[in-house]
Parts: sequence; structure tokens; C-alpha cells
Amino acid sequence: MEKITVIKVGGKIVEDAQTLAQLLSAFSNVKGHKVLVHGGGRSATKMAASLGIETQMVGGRRVTDAQMLNVVTMVYGGLVNKNIVAKLQACGVNALGLTGADMNVMHSKRRKPVMVKAEVAGTDTDQLVDYGFVGDVDRCDGAMLAKLIEEGIVPVMAPLTHDGEGNLLNTNADTIAAETAKALAPFFEVTLVYCFEKAGVLRDENDDDSVIALINQDDFKRYVQDGVITGGMIPKIENALNACKAGVSKVVITKADAIGQDGGTVIRLA
Amino acid sequence: MEKITVIKVGGKIVEDAQTLAQLLSAFSNVKGHKVLVHGGGRSATKMAASLGIETQMVGGRRVTDAQMLNVVTMVYGGLVNKNIVAKLQACGVNALGLTGADMNVMHSKRRKPVMVKAEVAGTDTDQLVDYGFVGDVDRCDGAMLAKLIEEGIVPVMAPLTHDGEGNLLNTNADTIAAETAKALAPFFEVTLVYCFEKAGVLRDENDDDSVIALINQDDFKRYVQDGVITGGMIPKIENALNACKAGVSKVVITKADAIGQDGGTVIRLA
Repeated sequence: MEKITVIKVGGKIVEDAQTLAQLLSAFSNVKGHKVLVHGGGRSATKMAASLGIETQMVGGRRVTDAQMLNVVTMVYGGLVNKNIVAKLQACGVNALGLTGADMNVMHSKRRKPVMVKAEVAGTDTDQLVDYGFVGDVDRCDGAMLAKLIEEGIVPVMAPLTHDGEGNLLNTNADTIAAETAKALAPFFEVTLVYCFEKAGVLRDENDDDSVIALINQDDFKRYVQDGVITGGMIPKIENALNACKAGVSKVVITKADAIGQDGGTVIRLA
Repeated sequence: MEKITVIKVGGKIVEDAQTLAQLLSAFSNVKGHKVLVHGGGRSATKMAASLGIETQMVGGRRVTDAQMLNVVTMVYGGLVNKNIVAKLQACGVNALGLTGADMNVMHSKRRKPVMVKAEVAGTDTDQLVDYGFVGDVDRCDGAMLAKLIEEGIVPVMAPLTHDGEGNLLNTNADTIAAETAKALAPFFEVTLVYCFEKAGVLRDENDDDSVIALINQDDFKRYVQDGVITGGMIPKIENALNACKAGVSKVVITKADAIGQDGGTVIRLA
């Protein structure tokens, strides 16, 4: 089975010309089949502000009303995505920018209003939150993606999906990456890479050299019990292990400038 | 040889929710292979204004500095393109939004500063105009497009190309449509349709019922000599005849709401 690397990069890296150039150079040197998934939240917030549209976040997630949907459609699907595509072409990578609507590649359902716990929402009491035009992925067409990839095309995926009824939906980029990786698992041996601000999962958050090289299911339970892995890192690793259960070979959490090199934290079932 | 219809629609139609819905319904009913090429100039101008960026036009063409390039990238490549794609998916059309950078489908050269005649520029004297990040198409990958189309995909093309050096370039949508049609001519029998505000080329501009049904090369010369076809319609028809010389079977100028029906003006070599 051929290998593929699905790499997710956050907004911060793709929104600065210099770090973007470094990233794309590193990405273009990654051998074999590959997919790039990008965010763009900071640019969306900035663009919204320029247009006099207020950004509302609850528990780190963007509330996406109709105006904000237009902003993220412009910024994720246009500005960020197409600039990455043009720059990858200049690096000799045959990039194709995609939202989930393109070729119906990623279908989602609009999220219903959900109760968000007080501690997550940062409020006194639990809140019923309508995130608006936000989609939870229910289908990714791995076969179509695999066909394009076999032809030498490198998908560049924006964090937008669609509901099949004509609406684009804002979708978390980490989720897009995980769903893409899982959908490609029947066709390739998949490594899913999350670019992170730190060099990996740290044993001691104040020591950048304390990267945990490998976390399997048993390690994870132990690290959580021992209080080594805490807070927001717990769902991240749970999601990574779930991707592995769904067929992804391994998930790597690493720094963007270490793409294509060994290092970071490898998460796999055993 | 299978048939294909390449349809170009201007900004006005795609920028209003109601006319867009009508257009996409009509487009989805067009039989056989098809491509949609869209503009979006009015939305770009509006978005630029909202961001405090002034739009400068010379001879009907947008001057595209770095800020304006970001605006058109967002609006053409994101807002307009991805909304059309999502809405076509809802009509059962397997749309794929593309700029020229995607899969390197349309390559262009940045336009050097050009002398624009006083009467075109609307100035007292001829002007040397630098249109900025504007591209003149030098290559369209018809083989790649044909392959996608054969697989049932319907390309939706935004008026953006790239120079292969990492820069997106703003490109006239009529040109994108003509270049796409020409590049597809070795693979399909191509009809190129330009949606127009009138029902076709009129014999009498004050009489909407005076549509000229057919214009061939000889007719064209005669109509120009006789002063029936004048002004901006002359280069439009010249371009249409040039597309026919390059292998396009026929060019149709018609109203958007007549897409897929007979009518309008047919332009062909003989």
C-alpha cells in the first residue's frame, strides 16, 4: 500500500508570509502523496473586524452567522486557499484547492444549538449556543480524493464543508484533517500530521525538550491518570487515537518547521 | 465527438440571490458536458468599498494593486465561486470550483504597462496604464479539464489565473471563457455561450425583438460596414470569430434566462 501524509497547519503559520513560505517549502519536500489542510481563523477575525463585523467565540469555536459565513468563505476558500495553491504551484506541487462542496468531497450537517458548559463558555451558567452555519462532517469521499491523488494532484483543503442543500458550513480544520485521513485509509497507509506551536506533546509544559516520543492507548491512559497529559491535550489525543481506530496508521504532533523530519510525538494504537 | 457547452455569466447575474438561483437552475438543466465561467466585478467593487479600498477602472478594466488582488481573490475565488459550487451541488451538478492556479489549469503572464487611448481611458491624452496584478492567458490545460469533465465533473471557473511564480492574477472572465472553450476544442464539439443583458446582438439597439439570429465572417464585415454593428460589440464578435478559428464550433450571445434554449445570436465562421 502506498503511503500518504495528511498535514494540518493552523492559521498562525499560513497567515504570515515568511512562515508560510517556510511551510510550503518544507511541504513541497515531503516525499510521496500528500494533502494539506489549513486553517485561517486569525485572518477571518481580522477581515471581519475590517468589515465592522464582530467575532464571537464560545469555547474557542467561532459563532458563524450569515455575515461571518461570507467572511470565512472569502478568507478560507479564497484568500488563504488560493494563495497557498498558487505558491505550491511555484514550488512544483500540483495543488488543487478544495472546500467540501467541490466535487461534493466533504458533506456535513449543520450543528443544532448545543449546551456548552459554563467552564467552557467562560460564563456563570451553562449556555445553549447556536453556532450558526457550522458543520459537523458526516461523509468524506475518500475514493474521489484517492483518484485525484493517484494522478499526482495534491489537495489543499479549506475548513469549509457543505450540507448538500446549497449552504456552505464553517468546519473545524482539525476535523477536516482527521476526516480526510480516515477517508483515505482504505486507499493508502496514512500518516496524519498536526502542526503545533510546540515540538510535540510535552511531559513538562515548561520544558520544550520534554517531548514524549510515542503515545499508544495504554500510555495515554497512564499519562492521564498520572496527570502528565491534561486539559485540551486530552481530547486532541483521544481524537488522534480515534483516527487510528478508523484506519489511520499514525498521528504525529510536531512543529511546523519539522515537517518531513523525524521528531514530535507519534500517536498510534500500540 | 461529444458536445460541451461553456457558459460565461457576468457579475450582475451571479451577485443577486434570485437571478443566481434562476441561472443555476437553468444551467443544471443544460444537457451534456458543461463548464460555468463567472465574473464578480460588482461584488469586488462593493467589498473593496467596505474595506475602504478605492476601485480604479481604466477603459472598463480594473486596476489591480496588491490590496485589490486580495479583494478579487477573496470575492471571485471564495465568495462567488464557492457559493455557486455549493448551490450547483444542491441542484445535482457535481461542480468543482477552479482558479487558474488550481491544477495549473490556466497560466498567464502579468500585463506590462500599456498605452491606453484617450477615448478609452476617458482622459484628455493617451495614458500609460499599469493594470497591476492582471494576467493575459498564455496556456490552458484542456487535456486536464477534459479528463475531469469525462468523469462527470463540472468546472466552475473564477476569473483568476496565476503566473507560475506564486502570484495570482486578475483575468477578464470573457477571456477565461474563450480560452477554456478553445482549449477544450480538441476534445469536444464546443459551444461557447456569453450571457448578455439583451437577448442577443440587436439590429436596432432600441428594439429587443431585432436579434440577429446568425453572424458569420461575411455577415460581420457587412454589418460593420453598414454601421449595424458598432462600438464595443465589434471586439466582442471579433473575439467570438477568433474562438471559432481556434476550433470552437459556435459562439452564442444570449440572455441568461434563455440558457439551454434556442435563440440569441449564433456566431460561427460560415
